[in-house]
Amino acid sequence: MDKKKNVTFNDIAKYTNFSKTTISRYFNNPDSLTLENQQIISDALVKLNYQENKVARILANGKTEFIGIIIPDLYHHFYSEMLNRILSTYETFHYKFLVFIGDKSEEIERQYIQELLAYKIEGMIILSHTIPSEELSTLPIPIVTIEREDKFVCSVNTDNYMGGYQAAGLLARHRCDILIHVNSPSSELIPAHGRLLGFSDFCREHNIDHQIILKEFGHTHDSAKPMLEAILGKLECDYEGQKKGIFVSNDTNANILLNLLIRKHGTLPDDYYLIGFDNSPISREAILPISTIGQQIDTIAYEAVSLLVEQMNERKKRKPIPLNKPIHKVLPPILFRRETTEKSTAQTSL
Amino acid sequence: MDKKKNVTFNDIAKYTNFSKTTISRYFNNPDSLTLENQQIISDALVKLNYQENKVARILANGKTEFIGIIIPDLYHHFYSEMLNRILSTYETFHYKFLVFIGDKSEEIERQYIQELLAYKIEGMIILSHTIPSEELSTLPIPIVTIEREDKFVCSVNTDNYMGGYQAAGLLARHRCDILIHVNSPSSELIPAHGRLLGFSDFCREHNIDHQIILKEFGHTHDSAKPMLEAILGKLECDYEGQKKGIFVSNDTNANILLNLLIRKHGTLPDDYYLIGFDNSPISREAILPISTIGQQIDTIAYEAVSLLVEQMNERKKRKPIPLNKPIHKVLPPILFRRETTEKSTAQTSL
Repeated sequence: MDKKKNVTFNDIAKYTNFSKTTISRYFNNPDSLTLENQQIISDALVKLNYQENKVARILANGKTEFIGIIIPDLYHHFYSEMLNRILSTYETFHYKFLVFIGDKSEEIERQYIQELLAYKIEGMIILSHTIPSEELSTLPIPIVTIEREDKFVCSVNTDNYMGGYQAAGLLARHRCDILIHVNSPSSELIPAHGRLLGFSDFCREHNIDHQIILKEFGHTHDSAKPMLEAILGKLECDYEGQKKGIFVSNDTNANILLNLLIRKHGTLPDDYYLIGFDNSPISREAILPISTIGQQIDTIAYEAVSLLVEQMNERKKRKPIPLNKPIHKVLPPILFRRETTEKSTAQTSL
Repeated sequence: MDKKKNVTFNDIAKYTNFSKTTISRYFNNPDSLTLENQQIISDALVKLNYQENKVARILANGKTEFIGIIIPDLYHHFYSEMLNRILSTYETFHYKFLVFIGDKSEEIERQYIQELLAYKIEGMIILSHTIPSEELSTLPIPIVTIEREDKFVCSVNTDNYMGGYQAAGLLARHRCDILIHVNSPSSELIPAHGRLLGFSDFCREHNIDHQIILKEFGHTHDSAKPMLEAILGKLECDYEGQKKGIFVSNDTNANILLNLLIRKHGTLPDDYYLIGFDNSPISREAILPISTIGQQIDTIAYEAVSLLVEQMNERKKRKPIPLNKPIHKVLPPILFRRETTEKSTAQTSL
């Protein structure tokens, strides 16, 4: 059989001496055939190299082994690293990933999801914030979200609250006079909001002066830099002579702030302590390795795919037992103390 | 019609009053039906929401609108940015992307490609270096490669030779005494090898002392850093007091080298000029914006998808005209002069 030529129902019918209607029934309603006849056709498909056309198999059993991923951008190192890790689970789970960048238009994202559903994807991992989880939960396939609003769907997240609490704690142990948290405005419903809560709670519980600065920094270096420059200018004025501990909600922006400080002062000044969030590559690639609250990106990726696979497998059972309520896995953050806070032990003067 | 329920051939047969065999023929051999009857069935599929199951449409016309992507890693900013741009063409071309990370194992990559073919993907964009283009050219779908060996397949690449030539030219204009090129060992067949050739040719043509340093830097910051540290130590010894112009083959490593220099000297010393390659985000996010040879990543991504779509469309014609020989699109690089070379105009002392 020539591998390049598609095997048709006609070919299978000839080979098995069944009618084309029978072959058609095999794909559309296999239970209408005896197990014996199913086996004969199934064997013929192998002989005829029909296994090369998984599309037919999908029609037969609904198993596409496709997972859809919707990710907001690959500019933030957190997302590109997360995508890297999710895709790398192919070697373990053998699922194939259809990837879509989207975080702006509900309409385009819905259109994309509808397309994916039409292709019979078996599950989705969603990192974009566009569509509410209540709507996602009505989709006919299992969903796992990562670091986004997840009330009605399964999710794998970092314990952001603990992360914010740890960040404030580290800055407080360095006896900063004022703790500052720089973040983007976010709904209380998204996990990352916990960073702000953990930070605030620590400061309140320990009676530490603190300020929260919320800005839309956009998705590019060029949009974020001037805003962070303005914030820094204001901090220098407002807290002159005070020891400032700054907790930035992601490493990408923490790096920009660090560069601005070093460009201005020739070094990270003694009255500045800086910690980011994510433990993304830039926190290590920066001029001074940046202290950060690490998300366990490889574990999150693995757990998300694993949780999704479990549910996809459940749906393939004859009597699938649906989940009573969504599963929310929460992974502890890891504090990385690096040179932007541990100044005594490091070469901080450049 | 309940949207969640699959529409079967039976449903379509009932609705149209055709036999199931006729419905089956519509999908498998539509030309055996009159155009009128094809239209009746086609209309019924719309009414019955059958358009929701694209898998059936694939069986009928082979158009999956899937493109496979194989990318070596998302650690190098060049690759994550390229993937970002390729995925973003969804809004223009409406193709869906199946993405795979692979650059090590021929066996796993072949297995992955076979899987993708079984799912009837229509084309592939390949950035990994694993499988020779001669083998890729035997696959039954169009292939476009980006920045890899491409003798037997279509490709979109940067004019790497011109890039290397420009980089050396810029360093020479700054009257460097010695030009150094830091790269990984590469086959002469890959486009990036042109960086080395362009650099060498410029130096030879202009009688400039130069040295080529080739090392396997690996795929992580931790593997590359100590090697670049050793290289820098040797350069400081070998060319003490001389004005050194260093052309690093990618921005990720150029950033590491820049940080090492600034960490050691408190500033980028006057006798060092540095230029990277790619114009990837790190070249802007670095402590000093790094001069670089820009690849037009957005244009490359667009051209690659566009070239692939052209060929995929050609194959759908009744009498497709195969390409006589592979098309190789080459895009000019763009020189970005930034602070690691343009010292007179910039604040270079930190």
